[in-house]
Amino acid sequence: MNLTQSFDLESWSALGLSEIEAALNQWIPVDAPANLSEPMKYAVLGGGKRLRSLLVLGAFDAGIHDQDLNERGWRREAAMRAACAIELIHAYSLVHDDMPCMDNDVLRRGKPTVHVQFGEATALLTGDTLQALAFEVLTPENTLIPADLQLKLCSLIARAAGHNGMAGGQAIDLASVGKRLNEAELSHMHNLKTGALLEASVIAGALCAGVSEHALEKLKIFGSALGLAFQVVDDILDVTADSAVLGKTAGKDANTDKPTYVSLMGLDAAKHKADVLLVQANQALFDSNLSNSDALVAIALKIVNRRY
Amino acid sequence: MNLTQSFDLESWSALGLSEIEAALNQWIPVDAPANLSEPMKYAVLGGGKRLRSLLVLGAFDAGIHDQDLNERGWRREAAMRAACAIELIHAYSLVHDDMPCMDNDVLRRGKPTVHVQFGEATALLTGDTLQALAFEVLTPENTLIPADLQLKLCSLIARAAGHNGMAGGQAIDLASVGKRLNEAELSHMHNLKTGALLEASVIAGALCAGVSEHALEKLKIFGSALGLAFQVVDDILDVTADSAVLGKTAGKDANTDKPTYVSLMGLDAAKHKADVLLVQANQALFDSNLSNSDALVAIALKIVNRRY
Repeated sequence: MNLTQSFDLESWSALGLSEIEAALNQWIPVDAPANLSEPMKYAVLGGGKRLRSLLVLGAFDAGIHDQDLNERGWRREAAMRAACAIELIHAYSLVHDDMPCMDNDVLRRGKPTVHVQFGEATALLTGDTLQALAFEVLTPENTLIPADLQLKLCSLIARAAGHNGMAGGQAIDLASVGKRLNEAELSHMHNLKTGALLEASVIAGALCAGVSEHALEKLKIFGSALGLAFQVVDDILDVTADSAVLGKTAGKDANTDKPTYVSLMGLDAAKHKADVLLVQANQALFDSNLSNSDALVAIALKIVNRRY
Repeated sequence: MNLTQSFDLESWSALGLSEIEAALNQWIPVDAPANLSEPMKYAVLGGGKRLRSLLVLGAFDAGIHDQDLNERGWRREAAMRAACAIELIHAYSLVHDDMPCMDNDVLRRGKPTVHVQFGEATALLTGDTLQALAFEVLTPENTLIPADLQLKLCSLIARAAGHNGMAGGQAIDLASVGKRLNEAELSHMHNLKTGALLEASVIAGALCAGVSEHALEKLKIFGSALGLAFQVVDDILDVTADSAVLGKTAGKDANTDKPTYVSLMGLDAAKHKADVLLVQANQALFDSNLSNSDALVAIALKIVNRRY
C-alpha cells in the first residue's frame, strides 16, 4: 500500500468530479420532452458528493497503470460511462425513495425533492427514465470500447440495481419497519440496499482498468467492506448530525422506527464497527497488489471519518 | 409475401407463448425478497396477450430460415431473452402507469392492479425491479450468445424504454392532458409511448435471427406502422368496447380529456387510418424479401381487426 500523506484527495476529487459533471450534463438528453429533461437535470446535476463516481475513478486509477498506453483512451471513456451510469441509477433511486408512498421526504441536498418541485407523476417518470438512461449511457453507438467490456458493465450494474441489489435491499427495508432485525439481517439488507451499488462502483472501475482476476477479487472485498462501513456511518450521522449538515432530514430513521446499527448495537459499538470495516477494506486493498491505490485509501478513510 | 390462409396463428401463438411463459417464470427470481418476488410474478405472469413477445418471435421466424443450423440454438435463446426482457419492461410500465399519481387505475387484465393488491410503495419498487431485471435477462453469465448481439439488444431496449421511447411518450402524454394536439403531435406521442417498444420487438427478433441490413430497415417500417396502428385501434376500442372485453376500465381516456385519434378525427376516419397503416405494414414486409413472414402478416391483421 502506498503512503497517503502526500496524496491530495481534494484536488484529485475536484478534477474527477468536473469531468463527471460535464459528462452527465452531456448525456442527459436535450431531445427529451421538456417536462422530463428539466426534472432529470434537477435530480442528477449540481449536487451530491458523487461518492460512487469517485470509487469508479479511484479503482480505475488503481489498476490502469499496468495497461497499454494505446488502450487508455477507451478504458477511460468506459470508466466515465460506468461512473455516470451508476450516478444515474443512484439518482433515480433517490427520486423514487423520496416519493410520498416511500419515505415522503421533502428535502434532498438542501433542495425540494423532485416530487415536491415537479409533482408525483413526473417524479415517477423521471426515475424510470433515469434508470433506462443508465443503460443507454453504457451502450454508446460509436465507440472503441470493446463489446465484451460494455456488456460486463451492463450486467454488473443491472444486477447491482435489481432484485439482488439495491431494489432488493429497499424491499427488505420496507418489510422491516417496526421489526427487530438482528445484526446479520441488518447487514444483509444494507449489503443489498447501499452496498451493492458502492461495490459495483469499485468493480466497474477495476473492469475498465483491466485488472487481474486476483485484484478484482480483492477489490470486491474492499468494496463490500466499504459499502457496509458507509451505511454504519450513515446510521451514526442520522443520530449525531443535524439536517443542515446532512442536507436531508436528520433523525428520520430513528423517528420512523427503522432498524439501524445505532439502535441495534449502540453508538460506541457502531463507531467501532466502522473502524473495523476500514481495517478490512485496507487489508483487501493491500492484498490486491495494485500499484496506485492512493485514491481508494483516501476515500475509505474519509468515509469512516464521517465526511461523505 | 406468403399466403396466410393456411397459417394457423392460434397454434403458432400458443406454442410460442407457452415457451415465453415458462421462460418468464424461470427468470423471475426466486432469491428476491418475498415482498418483491410475489408482486413481480403477479405483474408479469398469467395475463396479457403478449403481443410484444409474439412480434419478437414472428420477426425471428421471418428471418431465421436463412441461418446456419449450428447457430439456431443461441439465436433462439437470444430471441427468448429479448422477448422476455421486453415483456418485463412492458409489465413495469403498466405497474407504474396504474399508480394513483398516474392513471389511478384499479383494474388490469381483470385483476386488481399491483398497488391495489400490494400497496403503493411495493408497486413502485416492483416496477423499478422489473426494469432492472430486463437488463439482467439480456446479459446472462454463461451463454453462447455473442457479446455484440447481447449488447445490441441492451442498447435497443434501453432506448425503446427511455426518454426517446416509452418513457418520453409517457411524459408527452402527461403534459398533453386537456390540450388540443394535432395529428402529427398525437402520432409523435404514440410513436414514443407505445410504438417504440412494439417496433423494438420486431427489430429485436430480426437482430436475433441475423437478417440483412435491407430486411432490418424494412422491418423497422413494418414495426413503426404496426405500433401506430395498435394505438389507433386502442383508441377505437376505448370508445366502442366495454370494460369486461378490455380487461381494463373503458372510456378512461375520453373521460380524462386525453387526446385520442377518435376525439381528433372521428371514429370512421380512425378506422380508415388503421386500415391504411396495415397496408403500409404489409408492403414493408413484402419489400423485406424475408422467406417466412406468415406470423407477422397474421399478427398485423389481427391487430387491425381489433382482436389484440
